[in-house]
Amino acid sequence: MKKNKINIAIVGLGNIGSYLYKYLNKNKNYLTKKTNMIPNIVFVSAKNKSKKRKFSIPKKKWLKNYLDATKKKNIDIIVELIGGADGPAKNLVFSALRNKINVVTANKALIAKYGDKLAKIAEKNKVSLEFEAAVCGGVPIVKSLKEGLVANSINKIYGIFNGTSNFILTSMDKQNLEFRDALKKAQSLGYAEKNPISDLNGDDVASKLKILTALSFNSYINNKDISVEGINKVDRTDINNANLLGYKIKLLGVSHLEHKKVTQRVNPYLIKKSSYIAKIDGVLNAVIIEGNPVGETVIQGEGAGPQATTSALVSDIVSIIKGKVRPPFMISANKRKKIQFENIDNKKFSAYLRIDVKDKHGVLSNITKTLAKNKVSIKRLIQNPFKSKKNSSIVIITHEVKDVLLIKSINQLSKKDYLIQKPKLIRIEKI
Amino acid sequence: MKKNKINIAIVGLGNIGSYLYKYLNKNKNYLTKKTNMIPNIVFVSAKNKSKKRKFSIPKKKWLKNYLDATKKKNIDIIVELIGGADGPAKNLVFSALRNKINVVTANKALIAKYGDKLAKIAEKNKVSLEFEAAVCGGVPIVKSLKEGLVANSINKIYGIFNGTSNFILTSMDKQNLEFRDALKKAQSLGYAEKNPISDLNGDDVASKLKILTALSFNSYINNKDISVEGINKVDRTDINNANLLGYKIKLLGVSHLEHKKVTQRVNPYLIKKSSYIAKIDGVLNAVIIEGNPVGETVIQGEGAGPQATTSALVSDIVSIIKGKVRPPFMISANKRKKIQFENIDNKKFSAYLRIDVKDKHGVLSNITKTLAKNKVSIKRLIQNPFKSKKNSSIVIITHEVKDVLLIKSINQLSKKDYLIQKPKLIRIEKI
Repeated sequence: MKKNKINIAIVGLGNIGSYLYKYLNKNKNYLTKKTNMIPNIVFVSAKNKSKKRKFSIPKKKWLKNYLDATKKKNIDIIVELIGGADGPAKNLVFSALRNKINVVTANKALIAKYGDKLAKIAEKNKVSLEFEAAVCGGVPIVKSLKEGLVANSINKIYGIFNGTSNFILTSMDKQNLEFRDALKKAQSLGYAEKNPISDLNGDDVASKLKILTALSFNSYINNKDISVEGINKVDRTDINNANLLGYKIKLLGVSHLEHKKVTQRVNPYLIKKSSYIAKIDGVLNAVIIEGNPVGETVIQGEGAGPQATTSALVSDIVSIIKGKVRPPFMISANKRKKIQFENIDNKKFSAYLRIDVKDKHGVLSNITKTLAKNKVSIKRLIQNPFKSKKNSSIVIITHEVKDVLLIKSINQLSKKDYLIQKPKLIRIEKI
Repeated sequence: MKKNKINIAIVGLGNIGSYLYKYLNKNKNYLTKKTNMIPNIVFVSAKNKSKKRKFSIPKKKWLKNYLDATKKKNIDIIVELIGGADGPAKNLVFSALRNKINVVTANKALIAKYGDKLAKIAEKNKVSLEFEAAVCGGVPIVKSLKEGLVANSINKIYGIFNGTSNFILTSMDKQNLEFRDALKKAQSLGYAEKNPISDLNGDDVASKLKILTALSFNSYINNKDISVEGINKVDRTDINNANLLGYKIKLLGVSHLEHKKVTQRVNPYLIKKSSYIAKIDGVLNAVIIEGNPVGETVIQGEGAGPQATTSALVSDIVSIIKGKVRPPFMISANKRKKIQFENIDNKKFSAYLRIDVKDKHGVLSNITKTLAKNKVSIKRLIQNPFKSKKNSSIVIITHEVKDVLLIKSINQLSKKDYLIQKPKLIRIEKI
């Protein structure tokens, strides 16, 4: 008899797991028609079994221990929705793949940290490890890189990969909110978690970027050579200054192949108002791929939330049902490239500097001297006196100069006794 | 011995076929690494064998007759690049599938006309028929609908699907060119063919829209219920009027599921300047998908040209190499839905009317009376005297009213003796 059911275990029943559970039950017929297989949730597991849920789960479906999912003979796919790079999520996914069970996960931290190791096990055991939901939720970027754009040699992939940060920056800009008020608003709307630290410090984008880099350049994941900053030091003054200068501030992830070396960077950037990416507002995500022969491709959509993530999870479940088993990163582990990476020290940027100082004689000349010593030349300088008039904010747009010299300048300026706070450096991305 | 070559025949060696031929030869190693199969062009065929080409093709690769490709035992994939819904392209693809050979095609007219029949044969014979390149070139929309967005129930898919028309409209708008000059410019840049009729009369978009409709709504292709108009009646005055009113004119393809019925339409539309799609300029294509649960997804990229099309063709070749055979429209022919379609007669639009008239007494009152009789009420009216001052152009924005009544009004107005030319009707799409 031909098998006509696909048995699924969902481990982790937070917002996303719950939505997926309900979706799979509700859309059984639809998915059966599309795949010729009945999606069948056989087991679930969650930290808090007794938590009140708005839907009921038959008792027999509950696993005693989440790791039991990897020992049952009749499970075809485990959907890991625990989260976190280590701990239970790691245990679950490693033992599932070792026990030859297919895995679908939304866990970007896990894939960024252990993706290469996991891929090796999956390939050896001829099972699938799919992670569309780990990168930009509803934006089908992983599949597009592995399939739709497979013909292309990619030289740059970049974009807005974190809806929380983008929502906060948009609110600060459009509603003229302070950072903390924009964050509160995001939390009240469910766009930011109670503990939003990994969204705000750039770590979330960094995980996604590392995965996209490996997929784009057929390389291994590189956790070492990456510059990571979040939006937590951007304030309303920076946003207003940017506006006056014709820019928006966006948190970008950028992976770029130049001179046979890849740089990975996650930073807030000033980008021209007129650029496409400057207009991506709110919780949207957008990924831009520059490939040869295809040219520039843009994919834009909702980056997070139970709905968008479920769309991605289900696309992975369907591709396991309908496809041959393929290497998780498209190319077999042993054929992926040992490509060279480098940090951004020697990359040249034009930058925005904001130096808030006490109004003392000779301050400006000392600043410009410090910059000149580091070969940082000034393209534009605006001195804004504070309302109190005892202090000033000096805004500088520099010419292009090596990043290491920008950093050195900032560090030297930081020590000056006329400084009110650490100077700001926001690089300008030419797009 | 395990097979390690995939044998490909390319039939049709125009711009696209030639580019593909060179691409496959140049990227043999790259593709072998990605697929574990060597892409091997075994045969080619073209109408004009003796034409001077900038690259040489070994004599033994030339087929005597293009249909021989379907009779050779050692061909795994035929790439059809002849074009046209009937004639040689049709013969080739039908007999290839009947002879159990996989087909990859960029032929939108063929798939729109015979896609359902071809899909049945492909499924029966367990071979693949892939057509990513037929719809919006480098925009991986077919695969995204079949795979990345498979979880979603789609209620609307629309966008800019014709780069030639979009380039012309953009040039008329930005460089203030007349239609014929913009067309000449497009032709000189290679963005329009010598005979650009199917690009300009909407047929090209219609073919793509029919295919996207079938994929989005899991239905059969419907060639009957579709409203098709091109940009060939839009002139610079319309574009300037639209600008003054806060709109851009774009040729859109729209497929929309409302009240369990699907409408398909291809028309120039006025859309708000501030909308995303109004900013898609030049030869770019963009597809917007409204799905549940994913929300709105946008995919944007180069819609035509040898490079973008080759990217799509190769993605299809790779998916045949790496995937299981799947139904061409994702769902088996016998399970696709007999969904209801309806024409746009009863759909309500607000519209732009332009009525160029001789300056005679009572003209305006006659126009408004004619409109009122047809229940078309006026939201905004501007009367622009011609420079000669003997004639006027009356621009009207109507309130929402059934399409059939707009058409009726235009037809009645057309007969008036004070008319200088047939009145213009351009619908407004609320986006």
